Amino acid sequence: MTHHLGANQYGKAETRVVRIVRDSPVHEIRDLNVSTTLRGDFAAAHVAGDQAAVLPTDTQKNTAFAYAKLHGVDSPEDYALALARRLLDACPAARQAQVRVEQYAWDRIGDHSFVRRGGGVRTAVVTVGPDEAHVLSGVEDLVLLNTTDSEFKGFLRDEFTTLAEADDRILATALVARWRHTTTDAGRETDWNASYDAALATLLSTFAGTYSRALQETLHAMGGALLDAQDGLAEVRFSAPNKHHFLVDFSPFRVDGLTNEGEVFVAADRPYGLIEAQVVRDDAPPAGDAWLGVPGFC
Amino acid sequence: MTHHLGANQYGKAETRVVRIVRDSPVHEIRDLNVSTTLRGDFAAAHVAGDQAAVLPTDTQKNTAFAYAKLHGVDSPEDYALALARRLLDACPAARQAQVRVEQYAWDRIGDHSFVRRGGGVRTAVVTVGPDEAHVLSGVEDLVLLNTTDSEFKGFLRDEFTTLAEADDRILATALVARWRHTTTDAGRETDWNASYDAALATLLSTFAGTYSRALQETLHAMGGALLDAQDGLAEVRFSAPNKHHFLVDFSPFRVDGLTNEGEVFVAADRPYGLIEAQVVRDDAPPAGDAWLGVPGFC
Amino acid sequence: MTHHLGANQYGKAETRVVRIVRDSPVHEIRDLNVSTTLRGDFAAAHVAGDQAAVLPTDTQKNTAFAYAKLHGVDSPEDYALALARRLLDACPAARQAQVRVEQYAWDRIGDHSFVRRGGGVRTAVVTVGPDEAHVLSGVEDLVLLNTTDSEFKGFLRDEFTTLAEADDRILATALVARWRHTTTDAGRETDWNASYDAALATLLSTFAGTYSRALQETLHAMGGALLDAQDGLAEVRFSAPNKHHFLVDFSPFRVDGLTNEGEVFVAADRPYGLIEAQVVRDDAPPAGDAWLGVPGFC
Amino acid sequence: MTHHLGANQYGKAETRVVRIVRDSPVHEIRDLNVSTTLRGDFAAAHVAGDQAAVLPTDTQKNTAFAYAKLHGVDSPEDYALALARRLLDACPAARQAQVRVEQYAWDRIGDHSFVRRGGGVRTAVVTVGPDEAHVLSGVEDLVLLNTTDSEFKGFLRDEFTTLAEADDRILATALVARWRHTTTDAGRETDWNASYDAALATLLSTFAGTYSRALQETLHAMGGALLDAQDGLAEVRFSAPNKHHFLVDFSPFRVDGLTNEGEVFVAADRPYGLIEAQVVRDDAPPAGDAWLGVPGFC
Repeated sequence: MTHHLGANQYGKAETRVVRIVRDSPVHEIRDLNVSTTLRGDFAAAHVAGDQAAVLPTDTQKNTAFAYAKLHGVDSPEDYALALARRLLDACPAARQAQVRVEQYAWDRIGDHSFVRRGGGVRTAVVTVGPDEAHVLSGVEDLVLLNTTDSEFKGFLRDEFTTLAEADDRILATALVARWRHTTTDAGRETDWNASYDAALATLLSTFAGTYSRALQETLHAMGGALLDAQDGLAEVRFSAPNKHHFLVDFSPFRVDGLTNEGEVFVAADRPYGLIEAQVVRDDAPPAGDAWLGVPGFC
Repeated sequence: MTHHLGANQYGKAETRVVRIVRDSPVHEIRDLNVSTTLRGDFAAAHVAGDQAAVLPTDTQKNTAFAYAKLHGVDSPEDYALALARRLLDACPAARQAQVRVEQYAWDRIGDHSFVRRGGGVRTAVVTVGPDEAHVLSGVEDLVLLNTTDSEFKGFLRDEFTTLAEADDRILATALVARWRHTTTDAGRETDWNASYDAALATLLSTFAGTYSRALQETLHAMGGALLDAQDGLAEVRFSAPNKHHFLVDFSPFRVDGLTNEGEVFVAADRPYGLIEAQVVRDDAPPAGDAWLGVPGFC
Repeated sequence: MTHHLGANQYGKAETRVVRIVRDSPVHEIRDLNVSTTLRGDFAAAHVAGDQAAVLPTDTQKNTAFAYAKLHGVDSPEDYALALARRLLDACPAARQAQVRVEQYAWDRIGDHSFVRRGGGVRTAVVTVGPDEAHVLSGVEDLVLLNTTDSEFKGFLRDEFTTLAEADDRILATALVARWRHTTTDAGRETDWNASYDAALATLLSTFAGTYSRALQETLHAMGGALLDAQDGLAEVRFSAPNKHHFLVDFSPFRVDGLTNEGEVFVAADRPYGLIEAQVVRDDAPPAGDAWLGVPGFC
Repeated sequence: MTHHLGANQYGKAETRVVRIVRDSPVHEIRDLNVSTTLRGDFAAAHVAGDQAAVLPTDTQKNTAFAYAKLHGVDSPEDYALALARRLLDACPAARQAQVRVEQYAWDRIGDHSFVRRGGGVRTAVVTVGPDEAHVLSGVEDLVLLNTTDSEFKGFLRDEFTTLAEADDRILATALVARWRHTTTDAGRETDWNASYDAALATLLSTFAGTYSRALQETLHAMGGALLDAQDGLAEVRFSAPNKHHFLVDFSPFRVDGLTNEGEVFVAADRPYGLIEAQVVRDDAPPAGDAWLGVPGFC
């Protein structure tokens, strides 16, 4: 009974590319974490140790640095598309290149000085083949919290259910969201930065403005709002840990008048609920391999 | 233009279940990180905020604890199968339950005393539907290193290629591997622990005994050896960072006779190569949803 | 030859206290990580297993939650002082209580909605005895970067020195800074929040405005500026990793006209320089135990 | 009102040195994380940006690599002493060099093949001046657990105390321990590896063999046993998080006969108790600066 090579891919992960634009005294910074992946006919490397078709991951890293200059980093999507196309061209055995980028935001504190903003990390995943290009934009670790307007009740119960119904609870998550563009830069000029800024604003305002009967409902509203706001998006995917904040029980404390009216909570680490969902435009074009190899649900 | 709910799932992630077996003065410990996921018809929760069909993630957590007693934890696979079946039964809207378990190993230092072993973490992922059950066993963060018998040369070059060919380098990885069983406990009694121990031994000995012309070749050999050794396995999947160890260049140091003959290396953090591949038995039965929702390549 | 108990302390670390102020429809949030420590005569617990003098760490945790309501969290310093005094009172064997707080910042996105800001974490360490109280304010993980106006040259050389002199480099750090107040709330009302905001502004503007011949010089300027700006501060301590950004060498790439004029860098992880220094006001009052047990240099 | 430079130090942190000994077909590996620190008269760098006295941290890194060959790594203590002495010699302005080493253990799986062991990390901190040398050996992240023979009762109570007394609980910690040697290699040949192995064995056996009325008592016993076992040790310091394992309450579950007799626990992340203590030999020689700059309590 024999066996064979199945699906495979390879690349360089987490190349930390920092691009400074210093054409004027007011410098700009683009701070990226870049991962590249090639897929194609690399069986000889696996089966026979033959590297003739393999563009080294070290070269992929070099190319990531060089393209930060040659192409520039107007947006992570734009840079990733250029880099993916280059890698596909440079490696004949590859039938597909995927580039994943995380971009860290910095706030300006001087003409050439910056403080890292923290908060959510902007992401882009592009997947390019000879005849297709897919772009996913997104955000990771976007930590959101509503102090009220969240309930959870009317749920299914069994003999292990001890959870009390909640009329008013904290709702918090560290959101991962990705949305698929129907257009790439092939057809028309997409303003990736404007699209991202608008998407983030939509997610935040919808989270803030939605009464929540479950995190599921909130996510669905956020996804729908995003699709409603931007015609160029085909679908949205969310992975959302329910970061539990438990009301601290003050009743055992022997202090007169000490009550906890939704005021003091313990922020728990583990376990956490994990809600994952997609919202899809009815006439969305096929996703192809847009999501292939993207870690996690989205 | 309207939109709809796409694929979705929910559950409780990273419930830290510690099971002590104290039937005799020589205690046993099972130290688990358990994540449960339900898939099915939960649209009402997303679209209308209606939880009637939703078994709370808090209940799933309670069940994970209760089943550590009611069913016990002979192996992570066995426990996960029992827990997944229970959750599927308890939640009529669910068509599938997936349970993921990480098991941390402890070494005995007394009848009721242990020291955590560290090293690779044993994993199990089971996916259960009304008519199917899939079991993936695996190991995470298994850090392996060969000090020699590894080369990398003959690779494709382009104008960005600067990598020198290497005749003798360190090969190191922090392996994630998962392998799919063709049998579950439905058909016959599987000794999950014996299978895991044998699989780990096969992976280690093949890594140690294989001359490597690329990490790809080493992985392929490991996967093949695992399938050869255990008839009950259908396929193996690997995600293997190439943990680069760069030879330190001593030539600029002005010290007579100081050379570096493959003796002193810097262990790099980022970037790293990332090699991912599957090895599949030729007559492997279909995987169904066995790999659905498993984060990363494998 | 015998031995004895030396210095010792105990407490509850990393209690995650979230305080919501909901007196009006516009809610406020204080998100804290609180660690409490007691020092005193607890020898019986160590030597004889006698807990009669030991206020349990579980009680300390409960008190941290209760005081978020009873006292409130106007500032981390103010809250920490109240909590430390309470713990000292509640535990007669204690001669000193130290409370350490990290406060995570959130930006408002609605009346009861927030997005976590990320970036630097505000810190406070208070140490309270029967007759003294010390307050350290600070910030952790404040990631700062200058794209120019930084050099490093004229340094000592030996036979292992290979570093080239740099006329123009990136200077970046993930700063930990703490500053000691000469006043506590005993003497007069200190506006801890105003002091912190001003201190952060001074640190940022001095970092941005200082030409740097070494990270040491930049830190010294930042410390001096902080003492100059606020009379109530006795000293400043810094722990500053030199987060290296290395210029990528484009010269081996065979691309016409491709140069790297300070534009593309690799952000390195490890190793990193680590510069640690204090700046002290000439007439600073004694620090007492203000810094005792504070992890790291500062 | 003026200010001045206070205490300061600088160096290179976390240089990842991997040393392969390949004098025979059976290779050896030493896997180190090395941090170097210099203290002395470096005021000119801070105050005036003058680097003439500053041995660059890059040079310190180079020296760490070179000494892995020139001196070798028989033990982390031995290597650190040699490296510290070299740095002190190479930098006239320095009055003291401190070298901190973490050593990761690997298990052999072939003549030139290894699997990383995980578990506790061996540490060494040496502090060398012109006329003194101090050596601290230790272990970090040594995760220990007793399933029984641990109680906690008879403690002080106040109005916030809700903790129930425990007759039989899990006791677990992730120990950091360091012990100070009275001898360095100046006086006689110390077998650092034999001492470390014996110390680890003493810590494990004492943890396993001690009935615990509090983590404090267990630590005290471990420290005492270590001093009793090795004449060359002056003191031991511990930092020990109390990794809480809470018994899961099965009483609300509506399952006949389901009880939890100390069998199922939830392993909590935060908060955690934190017990820190020293055990000191009665006639211990002064510690000098042995502990200066060591992060945390020990």
